[in-house]
Amino acid sequence: MALNLTQKLIASHRVDGEMHPGEPVAMRFDQTLCQDATGTLVMLTLEAMGLERVRTSVSVQYVDHNLIQEDNRNPDDHRFLESAAQRFGLWFSRPGNGISHPLHMLYFGVPGETLIGSDSHTPAAGALGMLAIGAGGADVATAMAGEPVWLQMPEVWGVELSGELPDWVSAKDVILELLRRHGVEGGVNRIIEYHGPGVEGLSAMDRHVIANMGAELGATSSVFPSDAEVRRFLASEGRDSDWQALAADQGCDYDHQDRIELGSLEPLIARPSSPGKVVPVREVEGEPIYQAYIGSSANPGFRDFAMAARMAEGQQAAAGVSFDINPSSRALLQRLIRSGDLERLVASGARLHQAGCNGCIGMGQAPATGQNSLRTTPRNFPGRSGTPEDRVWLCSPETATASALRGCITDPRNLGIPYPRIELPGRSGLDTTQFVAPPGDNGADRAELVTGPNIVELPHFEALPDRLEVPVLLKVGDDISTDEIMPAGARVLPYRSNVPRIADFVFESLAPGYVDSARDEKARGGHAIVAGRNYGQGSSREHAAIAPRYLGLRLVVAKSFARIHWQNLINYGVLPLTFSDSDDYDRLAQGDVLVLENLQRLAPGQAVQARLKGNDREIDLAHPLSQRQCELILAGGLVNWLKAKA
Amino acid sequence: MALNLTQKLIASHRVDGEMHPGEPVAMRFDQTLCQDATGTLVMLTLEAMGLERVRTSVSVQYVDHNLIQEDNRNPDDHRFLESAAQRFGLWFSRPGNGISHPLHMLYFGVPGETLIGSDSHTPAAGALGMLAIGAGGADVATAMAGEPVWLQMPEVWGVELSGELPDWVSAKDVILELLRRHGVEGGVNRIIEYHGPGVEGLSAMDRHVIANMGAELGATSSVFPSDAEVRRFLASEGRDSDWQALAADQGCDYDHQDRIELGSLEPLIARPSSPGKVVPVREVEGEPIYQAYIGSSANPGFRDFAMAARMAEGQQAAAGVSFDINPSSRALLQRLIRSGDLERLVASGARLHQAGCNGCIGMGQAPATGQNSLRTTPRNFPGRSGTPEDRVWLCSPETATASALRGCITDPRNLGIPYPRIELPGRSGLDTTQFVAPPGDNGADRAELVTGPNIVELPHFEALPDRLEVPVLLKVGDDISTDEIMPAGARVLPYRSNVPRIADFVFESLAPGYVDSARDEKARGGHAIVAGRNYGQGSSREHAAIAPRYLGLRLVVAKSFARIHWQNLINYGVLPLTFSDSDDYDRLAQGDVLVLENLQRLAPGQAVQARLKGNDREIDLAHPLSQRQCELILAGGLVNWLKAKA
Repeated sequence: MALNLTQKLIASHRVDGEMHPGEPVAMRFDQTLCQDATGTLVMLTLEAMGLERVRTSVSVQYVDHNLIQEDNRNPDDHRFLESAAQRFGLWFSRPGNGISHPLHMLYFGVPGETLIGSDSHTPAAGALGMLAIGAGGADVATAMAGEPVWLQMPEVWGVELSGELPDWVSAKDVILELLRRHGVEGGVNRIIEYHGPGVEGLSAMDRHVIANMGAELGATSSVFPSDAEVRRFLASEGRDSDWQALAADQGCDYDHQDRIELGSLEPLIARPSSPGKVVPVREVEGEPIYQAYIGSSANPGFRDFAMAARMAEGQQAAAGVSFDINPSSRALLQRLIRSGDLERLVASGARLHQAGCNGCIGMGQAPATGQNSLRTTPRNFPGRSGTPEDRVWLCSPETATASALRGCITDPRNLGIPYPRIELPGRSGLDTTQFVAPPGDNGADRAELVTGPNIVELPHFEALPDRLEVPVLLKVGDDISTDEIMPAGARVLPYRSNVPRIADFVFESLAPGYVDSARDEKARGGHAIVAGRNYGQGSSREHAAIAPRYLGLRLVVAKSFARIHWQNLINYGVLPLTFSDSDDYDRLAQGDVLVLENLQRLAPGQAVQARLKGNDREIDLAHPLSQRQCELILAGGLVNWLKAKA
Repeated sequence: MALNLTQKLIASHRVDGEMHPGEPVAMRFDQTLCQDATGTLVMLTLEAMGLERVRTSVSVQYVDHNLIQEDNRNPDDHRFLESAAQRFGLWFSRPGNGISHPLHMLYFGVPGETLIGSDSHTPAAGALGMLAIGAGGADVATAMAGEPVWLQMPEVWGVELSGELPDWVSAKDVILELLRRHGVEGGVNRIIEYHGPGVEGLSAMDRHVIANMGAELGATSSVFPSDAEVRRFLASEGRDSDWQALAADQGCDYDHQDRIELGSLEPLIARPSSPGKVVPVREVEGEPIYQAYIGSSANPGFRDFAMAARMAEGQQAAAGVSFDINPSSRALLQRLIRSGDLERLVASGARLHQAGCNGCIGMGQAPATGQNSLRTTPRNFPGRSGTPEDRVWLCSPETATASALRGCITDPRNLGIPYPRIELPGRSGLDTTQFVAPPGDNGADRAELVTGPNIVELPHFEALPDRLEVPVLLKVGDDISTDEIMPAGARVLPYRSNVPRIADFVFESLAPGYVDSARDEKARGGHAIVAGRNYGQGSSREHAAIAPRYLGLRLVVAKSFARIHWQNLINYGVLPLTFSDSDDYDRLAQGDVLVLENLQRLAPGQAVQARLKGNDREIDLAHPLSQRQCELILAGGLVNWLKAKA
């Protein structure tokens, strides 16, 4: 049977489950990637598991997010992560090396392998013919422990590319075109597979741009074939031997199909404040701008920066425009120095920042109030820049630079300069010694974890008892988001490595008394929450499960759950059940005490009965838990389960 | 009579007062300099004065402090300052251009001229034979309005330099030697004047290093002669015509004398956490380090960065060491690119940051908890780095780089590599177009101020009435610091351009009810504060006078005042009086109402009588106010006084 490339990649790594869209499928991951904002919790999880050494072929810990060191917390985390990399046998990428996604592709990407990363833009490595997926930290820790990770089998969406990009139109415009057509939910539960004659005209880094921002369509991942261009790319890093040709079989099927004629595209831009609000640049030309921002994992390649440099050569950013240059990596910085492009940029008035994620994740470079900021980054959600009333637009380096020079939104075709032809740099001769290699086979167990005062080990969670008798401490309505359960922001985020401390913020706005009541009930056996539909929607943050669990949460009964939060509850040993009769929601009140018995018999397809203490009324509860998920919950969560297995 | 150079510079700009140490002397300033953290208030003051256009020959507004843009407040300030520069006729240095002090020396410094700046390291320009003084914003605004500024005539401290610096010993070690000998108060009320045959071996930027850190001795300023090296320096910027030879007269006197034989110096380092705790590097060799930091106005020159680059060439910063490179200016960045030094640094593992003050003023790059940070910056006060338990050491670029390579404190003489000889770059061909020039003569009045939501105009303060009847809202003890009056820190500082909002924090810890009571009394005519000795010690921040004045403070009666706060109270129209009989302090209580009459007759040498309402007891109060200071207070402060004059 003819398979598409996505199916081949999944089939070659499948260890359980069936490859039917929507069904659970378990996969082996060859590689993992963590960044620093999520990595501390992953390392604390490995420590709690008692893992001796990662069992992947390559696991890398990057430091690219929290580079602004206003106090000890971020540098303490960096030191902790460096020590954890030695302790568990990971590669460590030092702060200043740059953004995980382009670095990983450059130094570790291997066509045909699988990668799971605790960052939503991990799919960028799909540019090399890898299957690369973003996930929560617990799933990444699972993969590091050598265990399969369960996913929902996605549909495969074939996008055929034909023709060649016109001058002044680049890879960013390709993915903006898909966002223009399908919006930010167009890719949910799908993997986007690019194929067709137009692929060969796109460099590996162009493909990275497109695969990276598949996340903005909500796609599980994006996949490109591994062809001669991928071979050239790997060879430029001296990694010729990692290459293999990979493509879909002739005559394969896709669950969905689309087609882009590259020659028909024009410069596009996403308006504030959604990646889905895409319009042609020409329609919004002339709006004055405050900022033009080059960088991020969505435009990380040499050509993206060299294009800006050569367009700006001999000119200067308009008065009042902040022209922010964020090199994606140290290696790129060296190449830009050698090519003369860094000097071109500096001379044109650029503000040159440290290599890293920077303003893309709100770490500096916030725009002025109400002023337009044009960025080559992947996201422009409201306030993500740090400025409450921000106006962030997403576009190509060509459009951002043209606008920086003119001081207003400008279609680069109207700049009236010759189109710069950029030759990709050849073999760099740069090596990977900026990475700290994992220790030899016997070294890992000798390394010690270095923790600062804000890094606290993961709390131990008890196994689920056979009988639960727990009061309903909180009853909430529909669509409660993880932001309401566990707020984010500069006040809370620094405690991401400190579960006991971050737990103080749970339900802070929605139910200010919750934390104190939960602490009171903890010693008596914990508590339950009752919720309406779609409980735990929004951000995938794990702290929305861990912190309530730390406060004694054992049971959530809801009309329905958001998928990722449901998985997170299971991973941390909280029992998530749904009402068989949703009218029972109205019959439960805050303060009611629920009694559940014979929980050791929790099994797939088996309903659970809860008794309301006092009136002995029975409530029927259901769940779609798999055998493995039942085991996880009974064990008290993933850490305990893996520990018992090991 | 033979004069030293300091006396010549003061004499040529003196407009009133006598040149006797300790006596007030009024001077004309040719140039002013503001940075962004203090500049917003200066611009609000100019606006409140109704100034049409600055009356100096050169006034420059730099943006170098608040470069981390976590939300709209800093970028809004940058836009405000750019608009204010156009409005009042200043040069504007865009964010990303670099640090005010080396930039000012490079582009605007003129031997023989005077400079007053709202930054304590303004004296760095003394490297060119200027008299350059740091001051509060109101004094800088006074100079910008073309008015003389009153200072206390300092003593002149002649430091004779002889011989030549050995290899591996540089300008930083010269100023560290002075700090080793005399400590952080050794220069109080003095101007340090360098002379002797050792001067000619120091480049203009070496002299900048030494003059800059005179501030750490508490000196009012530092002065070097203008000689052939200064001519070479100005010529390298195409400013040959700004040069003139300047030196002390043969046979002149100094109030104090000291002598340094440069050849006898060795690498020195200031231990945590004071610039005065200086020891030879060899005594502390081997301590492990977390960070080596190159940059700041204390080591801003090409040679400082090129030295680090050439020492590190072909090597890498030790594992676990953060090697932070902070170019002092865009112009320097261009030179380092051209000379190959930037690539040497990046390849050696350096983290390259934006040009600016950065970690030197706690804007990022905070070290990890309890870990040693070696910095080429001027100050290492506890916590200034942002890390509560920091361990910051001050040293030369040679010592910092040697230590980065070894991973522990290292005397550079022990590195075992040849000493790099660094040739200073010749004429750069770089121009000043990164500065935004002031508008033509008629342009300034057409420019509009651009304010963000956090920038609020300076409140109008009423003239002093002839009769005050004010309750004592607060009675405090001795040595109350401006930190207790007006706290600093990340929570409060963002409101520096917003007096009404920052006033909410006045006496926050010491007297939590003060703000509310003061607001209540404001409409009824304001209030008084009674204090013990040394009221207003510590930081010079003006907000400690403006914010209480905004809340209705009209009168402070104290046993004695700290000098700068006393001046700030006067500048904002608060009447500062002292007890003739300090026992009267004990006779006054919170809640007492003081009545002062005939205040329009306030004059130098005249006592003032206060009557205690209710019992009609009289209290004799005194002051050492000059005629001009009496006028200032009667007018309601400096802004009103200058406005009336104009």
